Amino acid sequence: MSRWQPNARGRLEQAALELYTERGFDQTTVAEIAARAGLTERTFFRHFADKREVLFWGQDALMELVTTHIADAPDSASPFEAVRGALRAVGEIFEGRREHARRRQAVIDANPGLQERELIKLASLAAVMAEALGRRDIPQPAAKLTAETAVAVFKVAFDRWISADGNNNLTHVIGDSLDELKALTAGT
Amino acid sequence: MSRWQPNARGRLEQAALELYTERGFDQTTVAEIAARAGLTERTFFRHFADKREVLFWGQDALMELVTTHIADAPDSASPFEAVRGALRAVGEIFEGRREHARRRQAVIDANPGLQERELIKLASLAAVMAEALGRRDIPQPAAKLTAETAVAVFKVAFDRWISADGNNNLTHVIGDSLDELKALTAGT
Repeated sequence: MSRWQPNARGRLEQAALELYTERGFDQTTVAEIAARAGLTERTFFRHFADKREVLFWGQDALMELVTTHIADAPDSASPFEAVRGALRAVGEIFEGRREHARRRQAVIDANPGLQERELIKLASLAAVMAEALGRRDIPQPAAKLTAETAVAVFKVAFDRWISADGNNNLTHVIGDSLDELKALTAGT
Repeated sequence: MSRWQPNARGRLEQAALELYTERGFDQTTVAEIAARAGLTERTFFRHFADKREVLFWGQDALMELVTTHIADAPDSASPFEAVRGALRAVGEIFEGRREHARRRQAVIDANPGLQERELIKLASLAAVMAEALGRRDIPQPAAKLTAETAVAVFKVAFDRWISADGNNNLTHVIGDSLDELKALTAGT
């Protein structure tokens, strides 16, 4: 029935971001996204559950990546060292995707419903990190404090990364932000 | 026309929390809250815009308190010292209100829409703190890092406070949590 479409997913994602940017998220339909990508609605729904998922599809993989990196950190790693490694791995995923990330963020920032979804995603990320730290026998409240703080740092680093000019690198910005947090808390 | 009702606001708040706990937030109507409090719906709407506001009404005052405390911190205070003072002031508001805070939190935790609202409130709190730090000439990213981290610590401290047995004190839990964050980041 259906022909295989080379990189249909990427084309749909690109078309959706363009339309969300031009018209706004609420004003864009799946039919329009499919048409812009030169594909059918049916193909769209083979890749995404709905038009919101185009913006949030990587979440499960992100959680798994973070969980794995925290679990695999050396036994000698402190809680913050374990999350540092996990956040660096997240940073690497975004390598070369800054323009995409910037456009995605602009769409989210323009829509309160999407902002809520993004906040829930970050809260879930913190919960997953706290659980992974708990499995390393990090007691409470250290596990939750580390996880919530790590997500706070990630949020600020991500924002710096997409706002900055020049060819910067998210992994480096995350590392710098963690170092700055350490310097900021040291003086108190 | 309307008689003055002694402590109508407090009675409505108490009645609403009881009903949200017993039946769930979505299943409770304003008419039922007013009836439980022995007041009219009209009186309810004189105090609250809707049934959600019963859970979130203190937000503007909270933002103002935090802004004022950061602005009034001594010139010599570091960014984290300034937010420490602000969070301690927030902690003092909750003095003697732990049972209320615990019941409110249970209602929120049971309802995804209310959880989103709570996350937005915390994100707004971080934004307000970052702005207040900016007015103290704290550069970026230090202002945002401090603000987002402070809210992360507050979240964990609040959770510890409402979960704990015994007569603990939110202001103390916040102070302890900030100290623990310092110790956690120092080792990295």
